[in-house]
Amino acid sequence: MFLRVDKLQIELPPPAKQDPNAGAALQELLGGKYGEMSTLGNYLFQSFNFRSKSKLRPFYSLVAAITAEELGHVELVTNGVAMLNNGPDAEADDEGPADISGAPFEMMKDIRLASGFFSHAGGGVPINGNAQSWNNDFITTTGNVIFDLLHNFHLECGARLHKLRVYETLSDPTGREVCGYLLVRGSVHAHAYALALKNLTGVAIEKMLPTPNIPLGNIPECQKYLDEGAHRRLYTFSPKDYSEISAIWGNKEKALPGDPPGTLEVVEGMPEGGKIQELVGEPSAFTPDYAPEEMYEIAAKLYKKSR
Amino acid sequence: MFLRVDKLQIELPPPAKQDPNAGAALQELLGGKYGEMSTLGNYLFQSFNFRSKSKLRPFYSLVAAITAEELGHVELVTNGVAMLNNGPDAEADDEGPADISGAPFEMMKDIRLASGFFSHAGGGVPINGNAQSWNNDFITTTGNVIFDLLHNFHLECGARLHKLRVYETLSDPTGREVCGYLLVRGSVHAHAYALALKNLTGVAIEKMLPTPNIPLGNIPECQKYLDEGAHRRLYTFSPKDYSEISAIWGNKEKALPGDPPGTLEVVEGMPEGGKIQELVGEPSAFTPDYAPEEMYEIAAKLYKKSR
Amino acid sequence: MFLRVDKLQIELPPPAKQDPNAGAALQELLGGKYGEMSTLGNYLFQSFNFRSKSKLRPFYSLVAAITAEELGHVELVTNGVAMLNNGPDAEADDEGPADISGAPFEMMKDIRLASGFFSHAGGGVPINGNAQSWNNDFITTTGNVIFDLLHNFHLECGARLHKLRVYETLSDPTGREVCGYLLVRGSVHAHAYALALKNLTGVAIEKMLPTPNIPLGNIPECQKYLDEGAHRRLYTFSPKDYSEISAIWGNKEKALPGDPPGTLEVVEGMPEGGKIQELVGEPSAFTPDYAPEEMYEIAAKLYKKSR
Amino acid sequence: MFLRVDKLQIELPPPAKQDPNAGAALQELLGGKYGEMSTLGNYLFQSFNFRSKSKLRPFYSLVAAITAEELGHVELVTNGVAMLNNGPDAEADDEGPADISGAPFEMMKDIRLASGFFSHAGGGVPINGNAQSWNNDFITTTGNVIFDLLHNFHLECGARLHKLRVYETLSDPTGREVCGYLLVRGSVHAHAYALALKNLTGVAIEKMLPTPNIPLGNIPECQKYLDEGAHRRLYTFSPKDYSEISAIWGNKEKALPGDPPGTLEVVEGMPEGGKIQELVGEPSAFTPDYAPEEMYEIAAKLYKKSR
Amino acid sequence: MFLRVDKLQIELPPPAKQDPNAGAALQELLGGKYGEMSTLGNYLFQSFNFRSKSKLRPFYSLVAAITAEELGHVELVTNGVAMLNNGPDAEADDEGPADISGAPFEMMKDIRLASGFFSHAGGGVPINGNAQSWNNDFITTTGNVIFDLLHNFHLECGARLHKLRVYETLSDPTGREVCGYLLVRGSVHAHAYALALKNLTGVAIEKMLPTPNIPLGNIPECQKYLDEGAHRRLYTFSPKDYSEISAIWGNKEKALPGDPPGTLEVVEGMPEGGKIQELVGEPSAFTPDYAPEEMYEIAAKLYKKSR
Amino acid sequence: MFLRVDKLQIELPPPAKQDPNAGAALQELLGGKYGEMSTLGNYLFQSFNFRSKSKLRPFYSLVAAITAEELGHVELVTNGVAMLNNGPDAEADDEGPADISGAPFEMMKDIRLASGFFSHAGGGVPINGNAQSWNNDFITTTGNVIFDLLHNFHLECGARLHKLRVYETLSDPTGREVCGYLLVRGSVHAHAYALALKNLTGVAIEKMLPTPNIPLGNIPECQKYLDEGAHRRLYTFSPKDYSEISAIWGNKEKALPGDPPGTLEVVEGMPEGGKIQELVGEPSAFTPDYAPEEMYEIAAKLYKKSR
Repeated sequence: MFLRVDKLQIELPPPAKQDPNAGAALQELLGGKYGEMSTLGNYLFQSFNFRSKSKLRPFYSLVAAITAEELGHVELVTNGVAMLNNGPDAEADDEGPADISGAPFEMMKDIRLASGFFSHAGGGVPINGNAQSWNNDFITTTGNVIFDLLHNFHLECGARLHKLRVYETLSDPTGREVCGYLLVRGSVHAHAYALALKNLTGVAIEKMLPTPNIPLGNIPECQKYLDEGAHRRLYTFSPKDYSEISAIWGNKEKALPGDPPGTLEVVEGMPEGGKIQELVGEPSAFTPDYAPEEMYEIAAKLYKKSR
Repeated sequence: MFLRVDKLQIELPPPAKQDPNAGAALQELLGGKYGEMSTLGNYLFQSFNFRSKSKLRPFYSLVAAITAEELGHVELVTNGVAMLNNGPDAEADDEGPADISGAPFEMMKDIRLASGFFSHAGGGVPINGNAQSWNNDFITTTGNVIFDLLHNFHLECGARLHKLRVYETLSDPTGREVCGYLLVRGSVHAHAYALALKNLTGVAIEKMLPTPNIPLGNIPECQKYLDEGAHRRLYTFSPKDYSEISAIWGNKEKALPGDPPGTLEVVEGMPEGGKIQELVGEPSAFTPDYAPEEMYEIAAKLYKKSR
Repeated sequence: MFLRVDKLQIELPPPAKQDPNAGAALQELLGGKYGEMSTLGNYLFQSFNFRSKSKLRPFYSLVAAITAEELGHVELVTNGVAMLNNGPDAEADDEGPADISGAPFEMMKDIRLASGFFSHAGGGVPINGNAQSWNNDFITTTGNVIFDLLHNFHLECGARLHKLRVYETLSDPTGREVCGYLLVRGSVHAHAYALALKNLTGVAIEKMLPTPNIPLGNIPECQKYLDEGAHRRLYTFSPKDYSEISAIWGNKEKALPGDPPGTLEVVEGMPEGGKIQELVGEPSAFTPDYAPEEMYEIAAKLYKKSR
Repeated sequence: MFLRVDKLQIELPPPAKQDPNAGAALQELLGGKYGEMSTLGNYLFQSFNFRSKSKLRPFYSLVAAITAEELGHVELVTNGVAMLNNGPDAEADDEGPADISGAPFEMMKDIRLASGFFSHAGGGVPINGNAQSWNNDFITTTGNVIFDLLHNFHLECGARLHKLRVYETLSDPTGREVCGYLLVRGSVHAHAYALALKNLTGVAIEKMLPTPNIPLGNIPECQKYLDEGAHRRLYTFSPKDYSEISAIWGNKEKALPGDPPGTLEVVEGMPEGGKIQELVGEPSAFTPDYAPEEMYEIAAKLYKKSR
Repeated sequence: MFLRVDKLQIELPPPAKQDPNAGAALQELLGGKYGEMSTLGNYLFQSFNFRSKSKLRPFYSLVAAITAEELGHVELVTNGVAMLNNGPDAEADDEGPADISGAPFEMMKDIRLASGFFSHAGGGVPINGNAQSWNNDFITTTGNVIFDLLHNFHLECGARLHKLRVYETLSDPTGREVCGYLLVRGSVHAHAYALALKNLTGVAIEKMLPTPNIPLGNIPECQKYLDEGAHRRLYTFSPKDYSEISAIWGNKEKALPGDPPGTLEVVEGMPEGGKIQELVGEPSAFTPDYAPEEMYEIAAKLYKKSR
Repeated sequence: MFLRVDKLQIELPPPAKQDPNAGAALQELLGGKYGEMSTLGNYLFQSFNFRSKSKLRPFYSLVAAITAEELGHVELVTNGVAMLNNGPDAEADDEGPADISGAPFEMMKDIRLASGFFSHAGGGVPINGNAQSWNNDFITTTGNVIFDLLHNFHLECGARLHKLRVYETLSDPTGREVCGYLLVRGSVHAHAYALALKNLTGVAIEKMLPTPNIPLGNIPECQKYLDEGAHRRLYTFSPKDYSEISAIWGNKEKALPGDPPGTLEVVEGMPEGGKIQELVGEPSAFTPDYAPEEMYEIAAKLYKKSR
């Protein structure tokens, strides 16, 4: 089972301006082969299909706990996409009905992924940066524990490479923050899967990290997360379960050589998190609808009545 | 953010026998157009992309909370698939290495979705009953609140129809229990979206329920859930958030006419849940691996060391 | 614009028995690369996108008129699929509500395309015999008239080959009749595109027919259509338009050497056609619904009131 | 069976200029999830697969008749796409062979959907605005009449939302006219499915209209169609069949409150329609071919000979 | 550039009997995510896109040479599929025209992948064992050498797992031989990529082999290849190029501990290879055509004339 | 089996400048329906699945030999894509680590197929110009020789049309050279399939060439290939096999009327070929990696040691 908390893993800075092509770039990290839907989907189904859970508990718990974190990554990237596609929240969305006959969204026909406006009013969906859908081809869940862990290690390295390249195309603070945070957390996951593999096979595969061969410290947006030790922390993302991951992420293992030094530690539960953006509606795009005032009133009344 | 709890929403009875075609039938409820990946995917991205969240809080919370329940539904169906594909857990998976040269899985080349054995050793993945991948085409997230709710209402009715038909092909207790439970919970969701729509539009669309036109009481596997009032309960599936859903699921609304009577109620948190099946490995299918004893030993040692 | 007539191009004999795998075979002729959706889709979009229509009127009209016939072919194959999937119409569908708890459709989990039962209750949809969706990859519409006609000629030959092979797997009269009729009509289309090409290029490409190299006369189900001269007739499938096709199908051109001799002729309008099957509902599969009696009554009253 | 008429449902104004990105926007209404291929595909297969047709005749006829109208909508949008992609018809296409070595179409490599030029010379095909193919995932045909009608109601509301958003990106008269007309006709279909549902379930679901919450009167391009009462008219699109739809669209039902008042009426047959554009060929793009003069001559001679 | 040689890498034993479901199982190794089309496609495009080829010559040559071997693997599996689907070659295919009206291929409508008969007369195509197409999602070519090599190492391990499972479902000699040979060759490739990675990163990742954890010696069909040292040999598959691979596969590296001992060696060129099966046509399935005698005669005459 | 030679079929001129949209145009010729992956895929699987090879040897050899040439075409186009996406090779790629925090690839978020940068650093992959994957739908391999040859003839004509249109959008020398060369070679293939068909059916289908109706001589980039007689030459692309193709491409057949005159001739082996471009890495895009100097050193040492 899963519980939901009405926060993002971090608070995202508002975008400097509306930039749908930046939103489209971020889509690569949402629905691309090496995006967050892929890390989520792989670990979700691997954990469901995991064999001999009780005998391999630390490994099962590792995949299970990271799954829960990935859900929040999907959430974070989607929020980033929506923010970049829509730009800074307007001050008010309750202005009177707009005139829609003057082609108010003419610019939208020239953005790279125009259907994102037509269908989602700029919301994020599980497609990559070229509009191709995420799908089952991106999932590996074989039931062979060594192989699935090896796959996951490779997946996290690939995810790191893609985040780096997307980052290099973005000048907007929202998108860069998404990348910076995910680079730190993805590195934790790569490291964790490497340790799991090392324990099972004796191969010190974590020495292959970082791949690509660039330290997190070179990326300014990673700095604050490194400072607070985020690269040494793995969360259980659970009220009470999965603490067996300390058998892998712990046991005196250290941070990777290129990162700020320290011992790896497991945190029960989740990070403090940050506020979710409001995403003020745009009535002339029919979000939440054309003349939403009545809707707001109904919501207010219902809420009041229920207290 | 999401937290994970190491339980299923209900405990599933073990399968009477291995029946991969029954597992394939259940796949329709996992990755089909009207399956659990679709309900999850729609609500997940709708809640991420929701506009004017603060002004429409009860509606936002409704979609957000149901999303978390759907995650558990995806988990439940996947567990059901894996159980049916693999049959009852063997007593031991630590027998010595098997001889694989005698075509021990010859029957698997004749099952409907043979790749499910080759690729997943019987684990579930987001495909439908004909092996077609779930994908972005199944997601509607327009940002128009009325329309998205109408879509969701239709989606839950469609999901009910599909569950009923899958149920009608299954004689095994595992699959039937999955269907029975999900029929009750899906009916709650259809009802909830109907009430949301009624509040916003004045149309008593919940009178269209149940669709298809058959009471839950006709399905023996639903009975115990009806008896305990599951059809009147909506969970927040959150430690602290989303209780605003009582503005919709509450306010003296009653159970649907054909179901056991009573008032609708919101439960903070989640149901008690049940045990997840062990899914004992099958070394001759290389799960968790061919000769897994050493692996088990490593896991045990690591765990011990970390305490 | 298109008009619709409530008839099939021919009346189909009822199936001898329910045979979903035969229905699945017929799906190849509906949604396969060389199936009726493909002939329809190619000619539909070629006719919409046709350049210099007025100067190339006979060629435009040829593609346009055949498009309309293909719509009826899609209809015919879909009817065949539904009939084979459901078996002979039961005598009554108004029996009281059935008990659905006894796995009444257990056999459906073992049919080749089980999702066809779950999702469509045996209805036909644009997929091929392996459940892969028809899609835009199957459409060629380049705007180059010679090339599009060459493509169409090849498409009809491929369609003929596929119909022959599907035919060879069917023992049921419904499916065989579908194949027999379509073989005759498809041969007309191949012949027509060949004549169009010959006129434009001087190459007597119709001499390549029949491909595969088997006369229609070898197929008993084709015989009655040959006897009535269907292989020499091209319909305008229009109340008043497209008669310019006689510039291609006419001008003293003859039937192909292996077929009954005679002159090619254009018929304004459409064939007489035959009755569409009733497809009696199956309440326990929720078609038209679980307890449909009230529905029938409403329909009857509404109809009466409107007269 | 279907007949074809060599007219569009309305005559489209010529485009002001060539604008392939506007054509790409219109593609969303052709091949998108809520586009015309989807309304067509759903109703086409629902009508083929309809159960108990005789007992539910008005409902069957409703779906069947609207199908035929949708064919014309697919035609209309495709014509719009081709017109926008190619710009106003040149005065002549019979100039001598052009020099193709000077990159005469260099601009085409920068348009959003460049393959549309490479493969179709600007013709329309069943893809959405991001080049994703229309496919079977967009079809719902369950055989359950209530559910299929509910689906169709939701589909038409979604189609309306998408048309509105596409309209808001277009300044060219061709595309705006397509949207304006289809908005009126789509509203009729939403209304009709609502009435069908109301009759069967008692729920006044038409009160949810219009969704999105904007009257047609706000859209200048809808005005002339409202003035002539197009919003109150449902066509049988058949020479003689489907008049039973007056049991649903009739029986003294009125226009929706926000639209010009009046009684709903059924029109036997089809609207008068308008001229199809010529789409003059572009020999340097090899449409109808590089040096088409001989082709035109052949066509003229053939035509003459056949009279 | 590529040259072709009219031989298979090994001669395949004829199938004991026609077994299309065994052919369908083998399809997993052709078009599945971890099948031969994937190994081919990854290395093909990685070698085309390889950066700084001259400075990284041994690594470039490794990927380039293995690509050429993979082409032969695709060929081998496709031959295996076709052989199993069609059964042992008949003695003659020049019997007179058969009667096709007696449903001679009725059994084909019940095989798992019936479209394989309709469309390919049993030939192999790039789909997996569930009929899903191979596609670009299966290709990773990032230009980052460490990551691409890591991906390839994981890919070969996954391929090994899939080959083992397919092998376990087959009793026919043809399919088992395909698996046995490919298991040996795939192990070479996994080993080679491991050595490449070790050289670049210092991580002894080859110690993770074999994955799954079963020695090749346990598979009887591998034995003769091990005996002749095939597991220690890497071919350049080139008349003159790619010999730089000995910088990786060589330098005194040894066979893996579980396999017969010895030094790794590079062989210039290709293995001796074996005969390609004739695949005698089946005129009643229209291969090479219905009445092929004339065709054979033409071929013979043409050939004679050209000498 | 296949052998590989470390050369391109021709040497490509370096691009004048980086132009990712030109690279995207060239993708149509790589992964489009009528692109090189399609010609390759069709002939590859047709040759594997060919029936009665010995009796139809010249036809089998024709398909087999052209397959090998197509592999080189896929290689050529992919090289062209990568060159255009990356621009002229920089003088050095061994500069010290770059600062990646200044959005050095900001322009990449606005190119048409941005994922090509994110995932492949500009390398080519089997997708079309709109980012849609090449897939099995593009393969026809029926086992019916006449039909497969007819398909191939149509395919080559379609390929010619697409090459012409792509050519018309390119001003860069690299892309134009790719098109010019492939137009000549594709014309040879169309001609060869036409002769094969003529021999088997008696229809002089080569008279339909060229389609589109423009002589190669009109394209400056074709001139040098015509001058050297490339349009009259068919290679066996084999060390020793497939020379039977002279039964078709030979026997005194002549060049097409519009091309420089002469007799058709078979060349054993392959053309001389040209140098493959180096594709110098871009460390700030992590190709071959961020700080590749050590990698280069390792490669150099390994190579030295192995000599």
